[in-house]
Amino acid sequence: MVPFLRAVKFEEVDAAGIVFFACFSSYAHEAMEHFFGALPGGYPDLIMRRRIGLPAVELTARFLAPLRYGDALRIETTTAELGRRSARLHYRMLRQSDGVLAAEIFHKVVTTKLEAVRSCDMPEDVRAIFTAHLASPAAAPRGG
Amino acid sequence: MVPFLRAVKFEEVDAAGIVFFACFSSYAHEAMEHFFGALPGGYPDLIMRRRIGLPAVELTARFLAPLRYGDALRIETTTAELGRRSARLHYRMLRQSDGVLAAEIFHKVVTTKLEAVRSCDMPEDVRAIFTAHLASPAAAPRGG
Amino acid sequence: MVPFLRAVKFEEVDAAGIVFFACFSSYAHEAMEHFFGALPGGYPDLIMRRRIGLPAVELTARFLAPLRYGDALRIETTTAELGRRSARLHYRMLRQSDGVLAAEIFHKVVTTKLEAVRSCDMPEDVRAIFTAHLASPAAAPRGG
Amino acid sequence: MVPFLRAVKFEEVDAAGIVFFACFSSYAHEAMEHFFGALPGGYPDLIMRRRIGLPAVELTARFLAPLRYGDALRIETTTAELGRRSARLHYRMLRQSDGVLAAEIFHKVVTTKLEAVRSCDMPEDVRAIFTAHLASPAAAPRGG
Repeated sequence: MVPFLRAVKFEEVDAAGIVFFACFSSYAHEAMEHFFGALPGGYPDLIMRRRIGLPAVELTARFLAPLRYGDALRIETTTAELGRRSARLHYRMLRQSDGVLAAEIFHKVVTTKLEAVRSCDMPEDVRAIFTAHLASPAAAPRGG
Repeated sequence: MVPFLRAVKFEEVDAAGIVFFACFSSYAHEAMEHFFGALPGGYPDLIMRRRIGLPAVELTARFLAPLRYGDALRIETTTAELGRRSARLHYRMLRQSDGVLAAEIFHKVVTTKLEAVRSCDMPEDVRAIFTAHLASPAAAPRGG
Repeated sequence: MVPFLRAVKFEEVDAAGIVFFACFSSYAHEAMEHFFGALPGGYPDLIMRRRIGLPAVELTARFLAPLRYGDALRIETTTAELGRRSARLHYRMLRQSDGVLAAEIFHKVVTTKLEAVRSCDMPEDVRAIFTAHLASPAAAPRGG
Repeated sequence: MVPFLRAVKFEEVDAAGIVFFACFSSYAHEAMEHFFGALPGGYPDLIMRRRIGLPAVELTARFLAPLRYGDALRIETTTAELGRRSARLHYRMLRQSDGVLAAEIFHKVVTTKLEAVRSCDMPEDVRAIFTAHLASPAAAPRGG
């Protein structure tokens, strides 16, 4: 599990006064970038130099408690599933002040050659990070 | 079904060159605002004057084809489920140039008093719009 | 002068309850894209196929009246200055309900080859649109 | 001078492949929030509990070097001018890898009671922070 702290930004609140639900997808992506921090050059190097990305193919989110400006999240990221070309990340987003689970997200990504926007086998260093944070043995590789 | 056209904006593309997945949640919200266009004063009046909102409690999305700057979407919105306080919206997002299904989203919302951030019974005019666009008789009311 | 209507979006409001000031730059860019609507394929074709862009080099903005969700803007775009490679756009952003000037923005852009991020002479069709909407004879070409 | 480090986010790049110019306003706001980090409860407490904000009334920006995903900024914030109700912040945004000045922004804000959206005298603790980071004696108080 890789933890990541993230404060709500001033402009992430919407006209209802709470964090806009689309922002949680951005939070998930930031947590994923942090998750891959151990890659040489980090996630930016994967994208910009190697031209391999991890576009989302599925997203499932439950929003359990509202967030306001002044709140911060502790995001716990694990690998829920790992396939040959794809993986499913799991984010538990906890409100830092009281530990309440504010949102829970599953995010399936596919390793993709960016020029062609075509899936490719997962690079070994990417796989190693997914593997290191597999949630449990039950979450073993399957097709994908 | 309520259709809504939306062009990809210049800044919605990410470092991988395709529309960032969080933007699809914004597209869904815009389509929902349009869906409620027949309310007096539209969705803004519901939020700003009546102080009732429809925060998301669940989101399920599949991303099927990448979008680039220059693409536009035709978003078809229907009511997939209707409960006493909640509803599930269904968005089919078709790339306008070729009709390809680019994304499909289910978005469960709960009628909420914004001051207390507490669920409330669905106002009759809100319910009437959900009812008018129920996907099918099978999607009849259930608890929620 | 090219007019453009734009409603405030639900998520453009910040924790202070008014439109976040960065959003006005996005509004300006949208108005500019609309301004170039007469190009073949519009502004997206200039960016995506011809790979020529108009990055900002200077921005000057005055924010005169707050906007809330439910407000809409009428944006009036003219060419304030026109040079060999650059131009300065002028946006008057009027609140639609009462005609109050909510913001006024000057936006200097430079025609740029995107691969090299290097300035280039302005294409003739781009220049023709700038010329057609010059604010006044006093705003005649100068170096740039 | 208050320094602040900020990496470019994956989704801040636009269809031209560089950071969208509106994002620099968000960077400025983040640097301002950081600038006020010494307030009790930080800037969020000022907004959320005391209901006093610092909306922008003027913005002047020069964009000097493009930023890409993988770049980071070092933002140096000082007080350029200090008045009774207003102040002008100055941000120098340096690309961290090579120290190049990527953008320079002046941002005039007015202390404002948020409920009424009406200017008010600057609270003493807010003034103390502006004063502590005045760029030079020449930038002394004037009407505002």
